[in-house]
Amino acid sequence: MSNPLKVAVLGCGSVGSQVVRLLRAQADDLAARIGAPVELAGVAVRRLDAPREVDVPAELLTTDAMGLVCRGDIDVVVEVIGGIEPARSLILAALENGASVVTANKALLAEDGPTLYEAADKAGRDLYYEAAVAGAIPILRPLRESLAGDKVTRVLGIVNGTTNFILDRMDTAGSGFDEALEEAQALGYAEADPTADVEGFDAAAKAAILASLAFHSRVTAADVHREGISEVTAGDARSARDMGSVIKLLAIAELRTTEGEGGHRDEAVCVRVHPAMIPRSHPLASVREAYNAVFVESEAAGQLMFYGPGAGGAPTASAVLGDLVTVARNHRQGTRGVGESAYADRTVVPMGEARTRYHVAIDVDDRAGVLAAVATAFAGHGVSIQTVRQEGRDDDAQLVVVSHEATDAQLAATVEELRGMDIVRDVTSVMRVEGTEE
Amino acid sequence: MSNPLKVAVLGCGSVGSQVVRLLRAQADDLAARIGAPVELAGVAVRRLDAPREVDVPAELLTTDAMGLVCRGDIDVVVEVIGGIEPARSLILAALENGASVVTANKALLAEDGPTLYEAADKAGRDLYYEAAVAGAIPILRPLRESLAGDKVTRVLGIVNGTTNFILDRMDTAGSGFDEALEEAQALGYAEADPTADVEGFDAAAKAAILASLAFHSRVTAADVHREGISEVTAGDARSARDMGSVIKLLAIAELRTTEGEGGHRDEAVCVRVHPAMIPRSHPLASVREAYNAVFVESEAAGQLMFYGPGAGGAPTASAVLGDLVTVARNHRQGTRGVGESAYADRTVVPMGEARTRYHVAIDVDDRAGVLAAVATAFAGHGVSIQTVRQEGRDDDAQLVVVSHEATDAQLAATVEELRGMDIVRDVTSVMRVEGTEE
Repeated sequence: MSNPLKVAVLGCGSVGSQVVRLLRAQADDLAARIGAPVELAGVAVRRLDAPREVDVPAELLTTDAMGLVCRGDIDVVVEVIGGIEPARSLILAALENGASVVTANKALLAEDGPTLYEAADKAGRDLYYEAAVAGAIPILRPLRESLAGDKVTRVLGIVNGTTNFILDRMDTAGSGFDEALEEAQALGYAEADPTADVEGFDAAAKAAILASLAFHSRVTAADVHREGISEVTAGDARSARDMGSVIKLLAIAELRTTEGEGGHRDEAVCVRVHPAMIPRSHPLASVREAYNAVFVESEAAGQLMFYGPGAGGAPTASAVLGDLVTVARNHRQGTRGVGESAYADRTVVPMGEARTRYHVAIDVDDRAGVLAAVATAFAGHGVSIQTVRQEGRDDDAQLVVVSHEATDAQLAATVEELRGMDIVRDVTSVMRVEGTEE
Repeated sequence: MSNPLKVAVLGCGSVGSQVVRLLRAQADDLAARIGAPVELAGVAVRRLDAPREVDVPAELLTTDAMGLVCRGDIDVVVEVIGGIEPARSLILAALENGASVVTANKALLAEDGPTLYEAADKAGRDLYYEAAVAGAIPILRPLRESLAGDKVTRVLGIVNGTTNFILDRMDTAGSGFDEALEEAQALGYAEADPTADVEGFDAAAKAAILASLAFHSRVTAADVHREGISEVTAGDARSARDMGSVIKLLAIAELRTTEGEGGHRDEAVCVRVHPAMIPRSHPLASVREAYNAVFVESEAAGQLMFYGPGAGGAPTASAVLGDLVTVARNHRQGTRGVGESAYADRTVVPMGEARTRYHVAIDVDDRAGVLAAVATAFAGHGVSIQTVRQEGRDDDAQLVVVSHEATDAQLAATVEELRGMDIVRDVTSVMRVEGTEE
């Protein structure tokens, strides 16, 4: 058999230690699939004496990650440190030194992906990152390769397990947000500082990566409209139930086609992360607890869904190893896999231009003409109402309005006007509606 | 840009015509992804004057498929004729003439895959066939590539849309089998002769392909235990409902690990197609109508599911085009993708050795000692009972037994004995149970 393929692993936390474990446990299989045995050439860690889940021989451990990457004999670098720096410098150095790279670093890819892709192109090496989005679920490879002859029109993803767990508890146990968050923290699904998950930063990074691949355009985290779930109330969850819906935090990437001048069709991309109501009959509605799923619509294939664990050491390591096999095969053959493609170079439009639907619950005075006044407010902003439900409650009444599709800006302006109306006591719930056909 | 890549399409039925349509509609995208424009070099049809869904210039049409394949300048052959011959001879000739091949031919691959894989190896060309299993759903590529560093332990698939539609109607509308089949035929989901679908032949071919890829072993259709759904009754469907379950026709491929001599672990493969009850909480239970889904369990990734349309011209063509892009890129670069891998060479065990669970409904005399007698019959064959539900009904009673896991042979022998017992009036339903933890 051929010379061993030398792999350096940067980081030995929950993912890195599982990567090291699998490199050993699956050694025979990996060798058969790659065509050469894999040799663990070094593991870069922050502290040599830190406790870790896997035994690594002392001579393989180093605190000098840059030295490991640059030592000249490394074929593949696996980066599972996370964060922007030093991860970026290490990946760039690895590529410059002729190594191919596998990474799980969603934050870095979403912030500065193009720099990395260009470096990989220049070096003629692979940069793969399946593990960066939705953990073990194969979604980037299907988008990049399986659907390469199709045209993706929309991606809807539940890509953050923490928020899905919290929203699931709010739906099934009737918990409030704070209570559900505490439960998630107690079970280890949420961190002590849950901001990155709860406020949608993590999902926004993944949305940028999904949108870039789905639409062959450069989309970074800064292009993604982002709203978290901390404002979602137990009342919103009940409202969703009443409608036969459930609230999910969705990462949405859509292709928007508009008729331009002279019949020319303009295509733009809209990428956003926000909580939304989806019907219980939608495949994403049954994604429970901390699971992830990505729903893809394309012109020829129709509706596809990919489901599985979105995080965790072993699942994420599985995705890393899958990439490792491809990258290692290419490295040995002196070829490259399908790289990034930004050829379509589509414009990213701001959230105000996104077309969405709203569910609005309004506490109003219980008197004649209220429905007419509310309907006039919607109409005044060019928003068409699909359904209104009116419920009397003691001395006041509640209106629940679901709109037809309109721009997000029109809908936001409508809600703004409602809040200022005399007959409106409070707008108690505003939630976008997704996953339904007009 | 580079010289055009010449593609020949064999067959211009519902899939072939969609392939031709997409080759045109997606021409710019395909060229960007492949790095060269794609030229439709010829379309082989049975009759030149047959009506078809897409316009093909007369000079590209030919009834001489073999002549087209052998003419010497074809880079990629797309085979969407189906069936064993002439498809096999055409694919072999294409490979011998230096073309790479994309096919959707599940029957041929399941019957004689190894011959084709060897021919591709010998020719140094790619043979891709994502469209052969579960239509548009990317499942073979994830199994072959994304999970290449993991160890798949089980695949459970709903891979036949016709039978899923029928079983879904039996579940939701309470229809009998005949009535549901007629409805499927009226809606175009079932053919006039539904045998291949209803008796599980189609699913068995797909099970063989899935098992081969998941377990890196040679599995052909002849290795697959096959039972169809024509014996499933409205009563079975009701029984399933009562248990909080639903009946699905499953393609199951499992890795069986047994302790051999001296602690050596033997791994074998068991592949089967049969109707089974699964709990409604299982992700596969929510796969409705004619949709397909494949559920994969692996050691590191855990539980994954892939969902989408399992048939139809455009969805199948989407899968064909995805393969075409990969194969075309490899062809231009003079490389090959991940080929077949039979390195594990695992034994395929017969159905009797499979470990399953049974749900058995028994009409019995309503007198003392009946339950004890039935329990003794199970115990006599080494089958442990998990639950028994007893229901009085007029002068007789019904026992519903769910067993723990045992070999299929033990369970079959138990049912055989029950049928011969005096106190047993009838065994009204026997159904395997899947998707539950012991």
